[in-house]
Amino acid sequence: MAAKSSDLKLLGGWFSPFASRVKIALNIKGLEYKNIEEDLNSKSDFLLRSNPVHKKIPVLIHGDKPICESLVIVQYIDEVWSNGPSILPRDAYDRTIARFWGSYIDDKFLVCMKNILMAAGDEEEKKRHLEQLEEEVLVTLEEAFNKCSEGKSFFGGNKIGFIDIAFGSFLPFLRVFEEMNGRKILVADKFPELVNWATNFVEYSTVTGTLPEIDKLVLFTTALQEKWAAAKVAAK
Amino acid sequence: MAAKSSDLKLLGGWFSPFASRVKIALNIKGLEYKNIEEDLNSKSDFLLRSNPVHKKIPVLIHGDKPICESLVIVQYIDEVWSNGPSILPRDAYDRTIARFWGSYIDDKFLVCMKNILMAAGDEEEKKRHLEQLEEEVLVTLEEAFNKCSEGKSFFGGNKIGFIDIAFGSFLPFLRVFEEMNGRKILVADKFPELVNWATNFVEYSTVTGTLPEIDKLVLFTTALQEKWAAAKVAAK
Repeated sequence: MAAKSSDLKLLGGWFSPFASRVKIALNIKGLEYKNIEEDLNSKSDFLLRSNPVHKKIPVLIHGDKPICESLVIVQYIDEVWSNGPSILPRDAYDRTIARFWGSYIDDKFLVCMKNILMAAGDEEEKKRHLEQLEEEVLVTLEEAFNKCSEGKSFFGGNKIGFIDIAFGSFLPFLRVFEEMNGRKILVADKFPELVNWATNFVEYSTVTGTLPEIDKLVLFTTALQEKWAAAKVAAK
Repeated sequence: MAAKSSDLKLLGGWFSPFASRVKIALNIKGLEYKNIEEDLNSKSDFLLRSNPVHKKIPVLIHGDKPICESLVIVQYIDEVWSNGPSILPRDAYDRTIARFWGSYIDDKFLVCMKNILMAAGDEEEKKRHLEQLEEEVLVTLEEAFNKCSEGKSFFGGNKIGFIDIAFGSFLPFLRVFEEMNGRKILVADKFPELVNWATNFVEYSTVTGTLPEIDKLVLFTTALQEKWAAAKVAAK
């Protein structure tokens, strides 16, 4: 099924790892789309109508049908444009492994990152979550890489797939954390495979241009933290 | 693909809504399996080896391959035994809707239920989460039912499907909450469709025998709450 750019619209945001996932999936399939930047401080009626339950980006609009939740969207793209390069593996068991790690990344990695961001100002709390990220979550993902990649460059083998997209979309935020903390988290002596993978991922043709710039994201994240901190004070 | 009972083993627990999901999916496909009850206070080596990341039930063992995470398992069963009655819709967009609600149920409904359980002793906290469950989550699911069922008995139409399984597996815990709180939560004047659906669901042939008995589950839940409360005190 071919798609004209008028068929596909993405309600996203330049800073959003979840929107990046969708952009990468669309690139893999060679699909054109209209990118619509949402202002989260003043969400459009189109977004609120398209995702009335969560009111969140990204939403992919295919014709007049809205699809929500980034990993659900990626699977939809893979299934509808099944003639293009596959994103999830063709084998049912391998697909299961991909879904398992997709869910791990959103449950563990994402929650750790959120906890670190939201702990701003509470150094003890931040240290605890950073430790969990480094000693548990990234260690587990390094092991997962060894099992899934079978000696190739990506979780998906020779080309990027579902797990690469799910995890790789967070790499810019990981860099931001490193900048803000003044030290590297993804270091080669602890995570040799993931360090190589990260370099390969961000340079991959279908990823280029889908990830936010680090400097811009540092400013964005700092502002976000300040907003959360103010909300915390106001709630007390 | 036919399955002998020796091909399929389920590492589960009678009390677990997540194990119930897998049992229902196996029943829908008419698959025989060996049910292995895990003792969560003393997990078997088989479980720890089969799900080394989360160390949690349920795990479906197909041949010698372990599959973890209940909704991932349900999708695996649907895809491998695709000749049997379908669990996810055949249409890609409808499948997306099913996945969206599956994720909503695990994100919102499950988290609400956990928060209520863990708030035991803190009446203010419990009230807040109960309100969210009744005024937000169940209201949203009642609306979802109206859209998905198209006037039929189930989210999946005339027969139970992915959303029915994801949500219906929690019905026994909802009953337990009602017992423990001394009042109904799922009431017909607020949730007419869900009340009907719940009755139809628990009486459905492929569901019978997969859900825990309420009296037994009340005792189980009470013990769990006491364990959590003791852990909370110990952590202070």
